[in-house]
Amino acid sequence: MLRQATHRHSAYALFGPRFYCTSGCKDTVASVSHNVSGKQQLYITDPISPGSIFFLPNGAKIFNKLVNFMKLQQQHKFGFQEVLSPLIYRKSLWERSGHWDNYKEDMFRVEGQDLAKEEYGLKPMNCPGHCMIFKSVSRSYSELPLRFSDFSPLHRNEASGALSGLTRVRKFHQDDGHIFCTPSQVESEIKQSLELVDLCYSKIFRMGPDGSPTAYSLRLSTRPEHYIGSLEAWDKAESVLRGILEDSGKKWTVNEGDGAFYGPKIDVILSDHRGKAHQVATIQLDFNLPERFDLKFKDKDNTYKRPIMIHRAVFGSLERFMAMLIDSNGGKWPFWLNPHQCMVIPLNTKDEVMVQKAKEIATALRGENVAKTEPVKLNSLHFSVDIDDRAEPVGYRIKDAILKNYSYLVMVGAKEIESGKYAIRSQESRELDHLSVDQILEKFQKLEENYL
Amino acid sequence: MLRQATHRHSAYALFGPRFYCTSGCKDTVASVSHNVSGKQQLYITDPISPGSIFFLPNGAKIFNKLVNFMKLQQQHKFGFQEVLSPLIYRKSLWERSGHWDNYKEDMFRVEGQDLAKEEYGLKPMNCPGHCMIFKSVSRSYSELPLRFSDFSPLHRNEASGALSGLTRVRKFHQDDGHIFCTPSQVESEIKQSLELVDLCYSKIFRMGPDGSPTAYSLRLSTRPEHYIGSLEAWDKAESVLRGILEDSGKKWTVNEGDGAFYGPKIDVILSDHRGKAHQVATIQLDFNLPERFDLKFKDKDNTYKRPIMIHRAVFGSLERFMAMLIDSNGGKWPFWLNPHQCMVIPLNTKDEVMVQKAKEIATALRGENVAKTEPVKLNSLHFSVDIDDRAEPVGYRIKDAILKNYSYLVMVGAKEIESGKYAIRSQESRELDHLSVDQILEKFQKLEENYL
Repeated sequence: MLRQATHRHSAYALFGPRFYCTSGCKDTVASVSHNVSGKQQLYITDPISPGSIFFLPNGAKIFNKLVNFMKLQQQHKFGFQEVLSPLIYRKSLWERSGHWDNYKEDMFRVEGQDLAKEEYGLKPMNCPGHCMIFKSVSRSYSELPLRFSDFSPLHRNEASGALSGLTRVRKFHQDDGHIFCTPSQVESEIKQSLELVDLCYSKIFRMGPDGSPTAYSLRLSTRPEHYIGSLEAWDKAESVLRGILEDSGKKWTVNEGDGAFYGPKIDVILSDHRGKAHQVATIQLDFNLPERFDLKFKDKDNTYKRPIMIHRAVFGSLERFMAMLIDSNGGKWPFWLNPHQCMVIPLNTKDEVMVQKAKEIATALRGENVAKTEPVKLNSLHFSVDIDDRAEPVGYRIKDAILKNYSYLVMVGAKEIESGKYAIRSQESRELDHLSVDQILEKFQKLEENYL
Repeated sequence: MLRQATHRHSAYALFGPRFYCTSGCKDTVASVSHNVSGKQQLYITDPISPGSIFFLPNGAKIFNKLVNFMKLQQQHKFGFQEVLSPLIYRKSLWERSGHWDNYKEDMFRVEGQDLAKEEYGLKPMNCPGHCMIFKSVSRSYSELPLRFSDFSPLHRNEASGALSGLTRVRKFHQDDGHIFCTPSQVESEIKQSLELVDLCYSKIFRMGPDGSPTAYSLRLSTRPEHYIGSLEAWDKAESVLRGILEDSGKKWTVNEGDGAFYGPKIDVILSDHRGKAHQVATIQLDFNLPERFDLKFKDKDNTYKRPIMIHRAVFGSLERFMAMLIDSNGGKWPFWLNPHQCMVIPLNTKDEVMVQKAKEIATALRGENVAKTEPVKLNSLHFSVDIDDRAEPVGYRIKDAILKNYSYLVMVGAKEIESGKYAIRSQESRELDHLSVDQILEKFQKLEENYL
């Protein structure tokens, strides 16, 4: 039952022209991402579907890379299994989960045409669907902890005045996961969740100044006045969470009484490069949904027990996370995420052999040199490579590729063709290397696999 | 505006217990996939969301592999660019596209809570969204053909009595694509679409007897009585399509007058292993939506012209395609699609060193031997490998793994540990090979990359 981390921002008018902020936009993250998207053609929005992003090819590439990164970590390091769950559920599910009473205003209602009585809710979160999967067969202690991940699109009916670019949307995707576990497994599950958070923010997505690790702090929210579950369970859980936070070595604070009624939680707060705080990841204990869905597992002693549910997301909303990335990198994507990884430039565009060679190199780097009747192989490597063979001076084309944030430029001249080694430079450095196509591929592969 | 290929099947009661057909189920494809799914835990359905599939981890693996295959072919062989488009659109879009008049009954209506006037349609197809993307910037002839692909979830409000397993659903995914092109580009685009169809059905997914190429035929549907567009454009298009079909060397037939009002189409019909016909892929010309959305591009002569739109899907519905695969393979998945790729079996489960070694091998084959503080690398290889270290006789465990359709069995004994070469056999053959872990990885990689 993760709520999307948000800040209200009513000044941004979505119904005006695209990417145009009508009145002194204060949401700098949103405005940076609008500007970068405009230049790089990452996404558009349109009043025909307020708050839903149309990801253009370049934006879809970044989105898919982020999802790939997270799937790999979750599935092959942290023991998650991906499921694909429905988007619409009968009202009775939302009544059972408590959303119909507590969250109805934020949900979209869906109606079938053939039956007046068919009333559905468009899911704002994945948890009830995952409870249905947990419940679909009888579960044993030996299956726990059971960890489901899901990248389904979610919809929340945010006020239209608050909608803004990627940061405040109605349709979004979480790197969502739910862990069903025993009380004694909670500590290790939370620790692992925080390990993934740290891997993500300290190591891979370095949003600090000059690519330093992202500065983030942790915030514990404790038992509110109205709560469900036993006082003992709360005390135990809170003390476990405090212990973990103490041991983490990270800055952490407490929001006394600010936990959800169903359990305590740890939020991850990061600062954008202007020092503004954003909530991204969150890890929430839930004593409530297992109760409402009557979830149980057969324990070693042959009795049925109630699992605890942990909701966690590391990126939080993929859309918002992309906005944070853009805010920190200003559109200068690291190679692995860059929709413009490499530009191939034939030095003399009147030389047909040279242009042809440049095209061959681009095709090879794209991994598209496949025989006509053969399929592109599974697990094959493909880089985003363009060619600039416009009849413009080479200096102009180099400058243009740099301005367009291509990570690497490969220059193809007569000398290069003769030696089979092509001049390659990065966006930042004028220094030239001379590499064969295979060596360039190897270089790119190394960069990608290490998230550089 | 692709309609899902369907056959009505009202005998199957979805509201009964899961996978239980209450009254003489005649839909053999559906019943085979129910049985296989039950054994392999591929998916479940539940009356809480009639017609929406819950893909369990094994089913999600197959689903994702199919999507990966298609993305690779579309993007790196056939020039498609993936986009991610919204799921709900205001009524005015559907009025413009003509769906509100012609398709309303089959659509789910979505309502916001804050504004009574907010009325949306949950998309049954991607085309209007792609028209919005086409229209979002001014387009030049030099961008054509422009090919968008999209794997969005789609919803169609099929009658509840007709819902059945994977074959007749309300929520499904297409390997959807729309091509915007000039009239002179139509021929080559249709040819390429048929090439992808052939790659898919003749080469990769061989659903014929004993793994022979899938038998399929092509069906041309021509101008109906009521149509839009000029007679000349229809005649031209139909003659192009006939020419392509003639050249294809495939069996083809004509359904005179059965085209959609907006354009002629070619459907791909295949027979299941009982000889029953199913429509899968479809390629449709559309003179209508470009008109309704006032799509245009600036031609060489600086005048604005109307593009032609081609709707095409090769799998058709991913869900239905999975059912067809299950029907033809009875749950014996080829290695690359198998959620049970390999079982590692320590010969003596009382020997701790042996069990430990077996676990190490499984971890290595899963690609999960990653240092604690390091991320799993992008583009790294991961196979679905389990270990059976139950205290059961080795003969029993081998038989069990074969029954459970593991593609390969790796046996770990004392001799194997000493030599570093492990006994490996396939599901079908008792013949043993002796390979090192690296050699096994190489073998698996070759199988996967060639879709074997």
